[in-house]
Amino acid sequence: MQAIPYIALVSALAALALAAFYYKNVSSAPAGNERMVSIMKQIQAGARAFLRQEYTWVAGFVVAMAILIPVVTGVALSFVSYLLGAALSAGAGYAGMTVATMANARTTNAAIDGPAKALPLAFRGGAVMGFSVAGLSLLGLTFTYLLFVEWIGTNDAFEIFTAFGLGASSIALFARVGGGIYTKAADVGGDLVGKVEAGIPEDDPRNPATIADAVGDNVGDVAGMGADLFESYSGSIIAPVALTAFSLGLTADAASHDWNVQLLMFPIAVAFVGMIAAIIGSFAVRGGDSSEVKALARQLHRGTTVAMFLTVIGTLIMGGVFFGDADLFEAWYGLPLSVIGGLVAGWGIGKVAEIWTSDHFKPVRRIASQAETGPATTVLSGVSAGMVSVAASVGLIAVGVLIAYWGGQQTLGDTTFGGVYGIAVAAVGMLATTGVVVSVDAYGPIADNAGGIAEMSELDPSVREVTDALDSLGNTTAAIAKGFAVGSAALTALALFKSFEVALTSAAAEEGRDFALSLDVGSVDVFIGLFLGAMVPFLFAALTIDAVGRAANKMIEEVRRQFREIPGLREGTPGVEPDSAACVGISTRGSLREMLAPGALAVVVPLVIGFIDVDALGGFLAGALVTGFALAIFMANAGGAWDNAKKYIEAGAHGGKGSDPHKAAVVGDTVGDPFKDTAGPSMNILIKVMTIVSLVFASAFV
Amino acid sequence: MQAIPYIALVSALAALALAAFYYKNVSSAPAGNERMVSIMKQIQAGARAFLRQEYTWVAGFVVAMAILIPVVTGVALSFVSYLLGAALSAGAGYAGMTVATMANARTTNAAIDGPAKALPLAFRGGAVMGFSVAGLSLLGLTFTYLLFVEWIGTNDAFEIFTAFGLGASSIALFARVGGGIYTKAADVGGDLVGKVEAGIPEDDPRNPATIADAVGDNVGDVAGMGADLFESYSGSIIAPVALTAFSLGLTADAASHDWNVQLLMFPIAVAFVGMIAAIIGSFAVRGGDSSEVKALARQLHRGTTVAMFLTVIGTLIMGGVFFGDADLFEAWYGLPLSVIGGLVAGWGIGKVAEIWTSDHFKPVRRIASQAETGPATTVLSGVSAGMVSVAASVGLIAVGVLIAYWGGQQTLGDTTFGGVYGIAVAAVGMLATTGVVVSVDAYGPIADNAGGIAEMSELDPSVREVTDALDSLGNTTAAIAKGFAVGSAALTALALFKSFEVALTSAAAEEGRDFALSLDVGSVDVFIGLFLGAMVPFLFAALTIDAVGRAANKMIEEVRRQFREIPGLREGTPGVEPDSAACVGISTRGSLREMLAPGALAVVVPLVIGFIDVDALGGFLAGALVTGFALAIFMANAGGAWDNAKKYIEAGAHGGKGSDPHKAAVVGDTVGDPFKDTAGPSMNILIKVMTIVSLVFASAFV
Repeated sequence: MQAIPYIALVSALAALALAAFYYKNVSSAPAGNERMVSIMKQIQAGARAFLRQEYTWVAGFVVAMAILIPVVTGVALSFVSYLLGAALSAGAGYAGMTVATMANARTTNAAIDGPAKALPLAFRGGAVMGFSVAGLSLLGLTFTYLLFVEWIGTNDAFEIFTAFGLGASSIALFARVGGGIYTKAADVGGDLVGKVEAGIPEDDPRNPATIADAVGDNVGDVAGMGADLFESYSGSIIAPVALTAFSLGLTADAASHDWNVQLLMFPIAVAFVGMIAAIIGSFAVRGGDSSEVKALARQLHRGTTVAMFLTVIGTLIMGGVFFGDADLFEAWYGLPLSVIGGLVAGWGIGKVAEIWTSDHFKPVRRIASQAETGPATTVLSGVSAGMVSVAASVGLIAVGVLIAYWGGQQTLGDTTFGGVYGIAVAAVGMLATTGVVVSVDAYGPIADNAGGIAEMSELDPSVREVTDALDSLGNTTAAIAKGFAVGSAALTALALFKSFEVALTSAAAEEGRDFALSLDVGSVDVFIGLFLGAMVPFLFAALTIDAVGRAANKMIEEVRRQFREIPGLREGTPGVEPDSAACVGISTRGSLREMLAPGALAVVVPLVIGFIDVDALGGFLAGALVTGFALAIFMANAGGAWDNAKKYIEAGAHGGKGSDPHKAAVVGDTVGDPFKDTAGPSMNILIKVMTIVSLVFASAFV
Repeated sequence: MQAIPYIALVSALAALALAAFYYKNVSSAPAGNERMVSIMKQIQAGARAFLRQEYTWVAGFVVAMAILIPVVTGVALSFVSYLLGAALSAGAGYAGMTVATMANARTTNAAIDGPAKALPLAFRGGAVMGFSVAGLSLLGLTFTYLLFVEWIGTNDAFEIFTAFGLGASSIALFARVGGGIYTKAADVGGDLVGKVEAGIPEDDPRNPATIADAVGDNVGDVAGMGADLFESYSGSIIAPVALTAFSLGLTADAASHDWNVQLLMFPIAVAFVGMIAAIIGSFAVRGGDSSEVKALARQLHRGTTVAMFLTVIGTLIMGGVFFGDADLFEAWYGLPLSVIGGLVAGWGIGKVAEIWTSDHFKPVRRIASQAETGPATTVLSGVSAGMVSVAASVGLIAVGVLIAYWGGQQTLGDTTFGGVYGIAVAAVGMLATTGVVVSVDAYGPIADNAGGIAEMSELDPSVREVTDALDSLGNTTAAIAKGFAVGSAALTALALFKSFEVALTSAAAEEGRDFALSLDVGSVDVFIGLFLGAMVPFLFAALTIDAVGRAANKMIEEVRRQFREIPGLREGTPGVEPDSAACVGISTRGSLREMLAPGALAVVVPLVIGFIDVDALGGFLAGALVTGFALAIFMANAGGAWDNAKKYIEAGAHGGKGSDPHKAAVVGDTVGDPFKDTAGPSMNILIKVMTIVSLVFASAFV
């Protein structure tokens, strides 16, 4: 059993080796002609500049927290794991983005030879991100565990371990919000002037915001999403470990003895199994000989399907190994069932997202047909579609939670702890295959960028057709990743919430005080907390949507100025180039400034409430969790549905491109942009940051 | 103290006498020329037909419930109070609507002489509704109380009393949802074909949907809103009485003894004080000599201000009378403070609504200026404005709850019961002045209808200007009514929720079973309940929005058909009349069919959850309450903001009527229509119906 962290560490190194292999693979592919290389380099420079500036700003926050946490909580070494979590998260984002901005032009170039060449390249570009995220996270976690629990063996080992998660969350919060604002400010701002006012196509090289838009795909959908999943993955493993340690009152010493160690090791073992499964799954993705896009779609799906199947098998075996001893545990199959329940619920939420956002199904087609009666009915039908998808997703989460809870009780006996532990490992199950799931997800923005480069380099339209097909494929496969991200956020937050409850009680007990946390929803402070918690996701969404609006307005002004002041730009006179760098700078400054208020909200509000009244904080976290989950699903699916309704019309339905229904659908799509790419995805992190902040500072609240 | 119900009963009769006086007053005013009378009669006939059909449909549901409740709960006589609550609610709605459809043409006629004549008439028309609602509710409540508690003195007297509220809720639910769907189907459907396709102005007599639109104002904004406030008013008084009775284990017999009677009587006393204050306040509204609209606005505000001021004074006096005995109570001023806290919080939520929806303030102006960049940014800025207003309103509710809780503890001592009782009477404070508040609210749709009649009768445009000014005034004053309705819903639901908790425990105790309701948000069933509860308002909103869409589509087809098939209609050939009755019929059938699914959802879901797991039901109600409140505020204020941003542009800003920003603002307004008039206002009732259903069936769940 003691070997598990070392084995997991080795699997993490294997994942990183795979990432390095894919990196070499991608970098050795030809990047195309001079113009393509030049555009790629502009995107690369813009994305790097943004990330460097973002990290500089966030560094201030991270350093302040690294000082604050040990001072307030009294756990001196927590700053080490906090900084490690933050640094590795930042590193994974940076690595993934570097490769993504290198894979884009190469994918364009490969698309000249058809999709069979381009798809594997884009996938491998994404896989660098996927395996960097999973590998660095598992590496960091196992190292932190070994260092503080096994090697140093401090008393506060598990508090220190938990701080790793807060480090990851800190980066994720700002990366998601900042990147989300960046990408939509550039996208919306560029489109409104370019497509609507100047009447030039999307991604046209004359539009000064086109490069900024491509940069946005990388900093938002690649780096932001990477930091998000790094945080989710880390959090999911931390939650069951922290729950075990705090519930059973483990110190580092106790952990190495008796049966508790099984509970500490099981999540790490599941992560190890998932990692190996993801590595094998990634090899299942091949271009093949087909040039049919639908056949290629099966390739991408095969990668995740293989990985999930192997994870299920591996988890069942691990269940037998860990919990087979009938003297210690009641039923060996219980906790594996929890893991599988989580996996299936996450997959189900992804399927719900697919059904509500793919044009093969009724909701998107209904939105497209409502576009016939104008933008208002388009918006309304998208709103209601998004809201119905909330009901379906909540139903799945409820079933997943019940199965996981039941499974935990089967193995660990009929106490609350066993059930909640089951919920915690269900989240690990959802995210175990993160390596390959993120690969498929990060594939999307690479294909999107590749299309932009094809357009800007004025390649043959057939190349754009190939990249468009790859891109639309990415929309569907990404739905599963989103399902896992938001589903695991709910489960992880639930488990962390329980850990917070336990940590509070034990912190009070340590000081010899009698402290009963009353989380009865019938008590007034819990109820007020619930009200405030339910309100915060709305406020957070409003802040991020407004931030996109303000940053987009600045972009609009700049694009208008360039069209006005640079002679020959609008007409496309040869040799006249837009000042793309100015637009990149505007998006960078705008999004960084705008990410501060929502980011601060997420960290400060739970601290303030916690120091006033911990019961209210309990209600607050619960309210924020359930409402944040609902809003996250609503915004993601409504946004995705509008996007694909527009694409469905562009493909020829209801009058096709340029028709009135198309214009109405564009309005829906624009409304959905900050929903699905800024506010929606930030909700996952919001609810987890607030929970993990509360958990880390729990001892200080008492 | 025993005299209180009789005094309250007399004040209720006084309110009804005032309603009768205003009715005579309105009916004796001249209704104008032949064309106006003919239009008025068409509206009247349509509204009556709808209400009769609605009541027929709902009667089936009401009868089923009247059988189900005694059978399931074992409280035989509860069907009497249930039916009484339902019948009086229906009666109040019918009476109010009858006068409103009579006051509209008379207001138009008076508007020929200027606003000073028209305003008092419209107000009096609304006042019939206002005082019918408050009078019939208080009459029914005091009669039920006297009958079962004092005269018959059955053991289950308070269970029976509570069923009155469920009767009122049953009618309110369907009236709000059905009326809300009707009014928006006619409005959206008529506008989309008339204004957008045929290019004829709003309320043009050629548009076949114009009469249906005017009918909609009456069945939605008058009858629906009346049933809503009848339910809110009744619920607010029932909540503290039920809380007292169930918490202290009172039977009819015990109620007439010891100090508990003070707690049973205080809410009724506050209602009595508020009723008298409202009657006096209504006399403070006079037309005066001024023809300036702004001066007239002060008249309307004066009515509510006077009423609230008198209520504060009267409540303080009542506090001294009720709680002055230092042997029985700790501080006399505590509970009056709770009432005043509720009043102020409700007023504050109304103010927030006004700030976020009036064009005198920044949010609406920002939406109007965002209309310059098209419909998408208009929609997004409205969404974010609505969401920010949620934060402000939740803050006010939190402060109101804290004050009310604290006040309750001051008088009743440092137990949970005292605090929650304080919250319950705070809701009574919010709604005590319902008589005059509803008068001012119902004034709005009358003025709106008057404008429509002016347009359809082709009167001089100056008449329309007067009615438009009165109408825009109504939007602002109605904000306060909405604040009271939604604020009191939160407080009442909170108090009913607590009663539900208590009722469950005591029902179990009666059967000799040891039953502890565990509402710890950390327990898995409560958490799943919380998740499901948070989801239901989203699902409910989606169902009602879709219902409006479907019903509007049918209307669009019919209007298109008439323009196509009736020769000379579009051109306005003299003597050619549209088939308005067909449109009225379509709206009626469509909305009645569509109200069933959301209505059933509200009643069935809590019953199903309750019979499976009462802990989960507790979490469910809490989750639905906080999310429903947030969504209600969001939808109401976003919708109001879009509406007034459009009106602001129509008044000349950003290019005025017909400009591109105006078109963008119309999109926002259309999106907001079902938000603010269908889904949003139904939320109040949704959360209360679910709570009161749970309370009434509590004994059966155990």
